[in-house]
Amino acid sequence: MSELLGISKHESFARDVLKTKAYASARPGEALALVEIPRRRLGPHDILIDIHYCGVCHSDIHQSRDEWSGGIFPMVPGHEITGVVAGAGSAVTRFSLGDPVGVGCMVDACRECNPCLDGDEQYCERGPIFTYNSKDRNGAPTYGGYSGQIVVDEDFVLRIPRHLPLDRAAPLLCAGITTYSPLRHWHAGRGQNVAIIGFGGLGHMGVKFAKAMGAHVTVLSRSEQKAADAKKLGADQYFSLNDQSALQKRKNSFHLILNTISAPHDLNGYLDLLRFEGTMVVVGVPPEGSNLNHAKLILQRRNLSGSHIGGLVETQKMLDFCGQNDILSDIELIQIDTINDAYDRVLKGDVRYRFVIDCKPLRQ
Amino acid sequence: MSELLGISKHESFARDVLKTKAYASARPGEALALVEIPRRRLGPHDILIDIHYCGVCHSDIHQSRDEWSGGIFPMVPGHEITGVVAGAGSAVTRFSLGDPVGVGCMVDACRECNPCLDGDEQYCERGPIFTYNSKDRNGAPTYGGYSGQIVVDEDFVLRIPRHLPLDRAAPLLCAGITTYSPLRHWHAGRGQNVAIIGFGGLGHMGVKFAKAMGAHVTVLSRSEQKAADAKKLGADQYFSLNDQSALQKRKNSFHLILNTISAPHDLNGYLDLLRFEGTMVVVGVPPEGSNLNHAKLILQRRNLSGSHIGGLVETQKMLDFCGQNDILSDIELIQIDTINDAYDRVLKGDVRYRFVIDCKPLRQ
Repeated sequence: MSELLGISKHESFARDVLKTKAYASARPGEALALVEIPRRRLGPHDILIDIHYCGVCHSDIHQSRDEWSGGIFPMVPGHEITGVVAGAGSAVTRFSLGDPVGVGCMVDACRECNPCLDGDEQYCERGPIFTYNSKDRNGAPTYGGYSGQIVVDEDFVLRIPRHLPLDRAAPLLCAGITTYSPLRHWHAGRGQNVAIIGFGGLGHMGVKFAKAMGAHVTVLSRSEQKAADAKKLGADQYFSLNDQSALQKRKNSFHLILNTISAPHDLNGYLDLLRFEGTMVVVGVPPEGSNLNHAKLILQRRNLSGSHIGGLVETQKMLDFCGQNDILSDIELIQIDTINDAYDRVLKGDVRYRFVIDCKPLRQ
Repeated sequence: MSELLGISKHESFARDVLKTKAYASARPGEALALVEIPRRRLGPHDILIDIHYCGVCHSDIHQSRDEWSGGIFPMVPGHEITGVVAGAGSAVTRFSLGDPVGVGCMVDACRECNPCLDGDEQYCERGPIFTYNSKDRNGAPTYGGYSGQIVVDEDFVLRIPRHLPLDRAAPLLCAGITTYSPLRHWHAGRGQNVAIIGFGGLGHMGVKFAKAMGAHVTVLSRSEQKAADAKKLGADQYFSLNDQSALQKRKNSFHLILNTISAPHDLNGYLDLLRFEGTMVVVGVPPEGSNLNHAKLILQRRNLSGSHIGGLVETQKMLDFCGQNDILSDIELIQIDTINDAYDRVLKGDVRYRFVIDCKPLRQ
């Protein structure tokens, strides 16, 4: 076991601080390894959560390799957390011991700006406090869900419907809300032709949500091997992005396209698939950006928009919707000591469709 | 006087065909010169218009130089046409001899598709028939407004409010509707901070419209010399796009940005100026496209959209709005034999703010 990370910098938290095992990257790009980290003492509004599962998001890899720069190290990734309430502060009213709960990408926000007051904490004007790779209100680094326990203000804790298994529910906290929120915001539903571009961790959730909302769903994937899976999850149509004749036939077809691709791609070609006044929503960030031909927007009054996770109220609505419609992620459950191999497989697109870590060894 | 263009190809129109003087580019990039062109005999629904004035649009230059390829030559540019009704077909009911009228970018469309039925002929699924550099229903090339007369179906003829001078009204038919339509579509009005990027032929009309609609209007221009003009036309604020500190201060400021620039520009930097859920509408097409950083849309749920001129009903509404609010273009009136020099000056941005051709010599 390595040293207790960060304690020397945050002495006010050192006394009576909780300790938990975690997997951290000590420096940018360094393999993740077992460490012990502090969790703050329970404040009156705090919940202590025993973490059961944590999903592996592609952004965990970006950040642990500091590909977005400004990373705070050592870094404990993980923002698709499910578990059970193991303790609660004196003023907590909404949760009881043993409740199944979740934590997503945020653990706090300013709560005062217009987006926060409107329940759009993800667009907080001062920037939300993220679950990891962020600084909390006291300036201490936040550590994510690749760990045994976490302490979070109850306002940022979500309720998981009791009949949903916590392992398959974990990816709902990021991949789920990231696709649910734009589908709701841009009114996916009956009579709408919706395309999901990219069929990975995000895309496979997008298919399930769009179908449950009543839309006609088409999957466009770089892979030629996933058609059967897509149809099993509810897609009405599937075609490969390499099939130029299929793309040609579907020009001006879709009311809404949810573009989940984070790698470089042909944005202009995909915009051609939108019908008059249709909208493409991007949720991925190709590092070099995309070339945009303005005429693709002008000649059919098309819209190109972006969407970032979702607020707390909407995330709870998404979880309740999953409870009502039995929507879960398709996962591969892994042990934490295989996390570095899992990262390599994510980069190859070799996962159907989300890795979820069993955090039990980290609670012991 | 050169030969009568095109007659040999369209013999059915050769008998009793009208002839008019015009300025044409014989081949891509060739200087415009005097020619004689045919106009079709009046059909029952046609209007014969004596052209008084025609505005000079940057797209006239692109097309006469075939920069968008596929150009039809010889080409007579011009789609900002004002004049007076000089003849009418037997079934014409909406116009009388002597009425002041205008013709914009389109002279017909399929009239059957959904956009046409909704009054959005500019988005006609089969493509509208443009005023020049297009083929009419009989396959004959269309010739634009750098000419003495034109024959147009009455459904594509606009009424110019009688008290508006026809020279300053001409640019309303393209520069006017191109800026009016997106400002209306995206609800520019009281309580809205609207930015107009680019202060040329389009931008100066955008300022007048946005102000008349009640918005708080900021002009962002590459020029550092036009502040006084912008304020005279109604802008509340003006700053140079080279002033990085001014850009920095106005981040997250605007509900709506109308981006009129056709040259390469820093789209990502301008998107930062939009507030949460704000919209930028592009109406210009930089030839190489723009680099788009997806995060600029994602992190504030911003929208990027495009808009293309306007339909017939909306163009008439725009002209009526101009009549009610005394909105006209600021122009430099020129003689047709200086058109090639005028093109050079447009390319240098040396015009305040639109050249308009006096077409009288072409009617004689």
